[in-house]
Amino acid sequence: LTVSRPPCHQLFYAEPDHIESGLIHFSREETSHMVSSLRLKAGESITATDGRGRLIEAELREAERGRAVAEVLCVEEVPPPDVMLTLYQGLIRPQRMDLIVEKCVELGINRLVPLVSERALERGTEARLKRWRKIAIEAMKQSLRPHLPAIEPATAFGDALRDVAGLDLALVAHQEEEGGAGLEAADVRIGKGTIGLFIGPEGGFSDAEIRVLAERGARLFGMGGARLKSETAAIAAVAIIRRLLD
Amino acid sequence: LTVSRPPCHQLFYAEPDHIESGLIHFSREETSHMVSSLRLKAGESITATDGRGRLIEAELREAERGRAVAEVLCVEEVPPPDVMLTLYQGLIRPQRMDLIVEKCVELGINRLVPLVSERALERGTEARLKRWRKIAIEAMKQSLRPHLPAIEPATAFGDALRDVAGLDLALVAHQEEEGGAGLEAADVRIGKGTIGLFIGPEGGFSDAEIRVLAERGARLFGMGGARLKSETAAIAAVAIIRRLLD
Repeated sequence: LTVSRPPCHQLFYAEPDHIESGLIHFSREETSHMVSSLRLKAGESITATDGRGRLIEAELREAERGRAVAEVLCVEEVPPPDVMLTLYQGLIRPQRMDLIVEKCVELGINRLVPLVSERALERGTEARLKRWRKIAIEAMKQSLRPHLPAIEPATAFGDALRDVAGLDLALVAHQEEEGGAGLEAADVRIGKGTIGLFIGPEGGFSDAEIRVLAERGARLFGMGGARLKSETAAIAAVAIIRRLLD
Repeated sequence: LTVSRPPCHQLFYAEPDHIESGLIHFSREETSHMVSSLRLKAGESITATDGRGRLIEAELREAERGRAVAEVLCVEEVPPPDVMLTLYQGLIRPQRMDLIVEKCVELGINRLVPLVSERALERGTEARLKRWRKIAIEAMKQSLRPHLPAIEPATAFGDALRDVAGLDLALVAHQEEEGGAGLEAADVRIGKGTIGLFIGPEGGFSDAEIRVLAERGARLFGMGGARLKSETAAIAAVAIIRRLLD
């Protein structure tokens, strides 16, 4: 059996280890959303995902305050996208970082590495990481995608640098390139593989950081003539890259 | 004399009628920003714009609390972009509408028409309009563009419809088109002229609205497989269109 896609206008999430023996046990939050906000009742059909590519058609067996359990009816395995896109994002102010997580997950990143680069505004805390992961789940549900992007802990620039060699394509947004090549010229249509997109914090990457990224083979690109805020550059670049890959 | 561009990392704004006899009289807000935040002093060089394409190199003559006056040294007239892009945006929740104004001005819209469509969440007030115009000025300054986009008062869908015939290209984001043509196929590279981009509110345009837009010659396009929030679709579409036009 396969689930028709888009199967519904509402996608629910359950962690993989909360799905067993044909039953889905929803978290307290998801239960509250189902029962209190949407007023779903036992017997109703829902669609859920484990965030690992499974779209699950299920029927609610229990739907009470604090407890929602559904029976799995059928499962479709959705393959991951051909091109896995990781955003390496220099850390910026909390509200604007939250915006990046929400919008870039909607627009189709597969992994986010918050970067502690030279001009990053902060180091990233455990609480922030938890918050980003929550935002990512909501954005995944919003966009009806069954793959939950990995949100990594804040990572030192030097450590992220080690990823570059393993990427099929590394791209760096660079203000100085404004008269230069845009994303089209960067030839992002790699067909299948991994792309890493590096976006600096406010103030951008330092000259030394740009130099070492370029030395490792990353391609610099400009975002047109205007000066963009860091979060605007990230959202716009992800939108354009996903569009070029489609 | 021409001003080298980008002439600085800071662009100030003065309304056209505050520039006369070779002097720029800055608003109370701009003065406060210059004097209290940036601690600029008389004698320092600044770059300002009237939001109508003029980049003005000037020297501060007075810089006190409540009063900043600069003398015009030279002026560069920057031509407007070849393609003027108007965003017709179905009204959504205040915070998210603010985000659209900020990000879409940064990314290069030239005019915003807030639309009161069937599923629009509100009607748009005078206070909101004032707020959007303020956000637009900040975003123009941020992006170092010397053209201030026109932010129109909230407009009935039927009135906006009358614009369509006069546009060189009208585009409508339409969720149902997700399997269909994307923006590349809509052939936005019109060279010179006017593009109108219609983005529905949460829940999208109604079937009747989509039908009448299509009847008037608007082209429907999809934003890929994912379901996007209204503001995400607006920001992503503007980023992609400006990129395709570059």
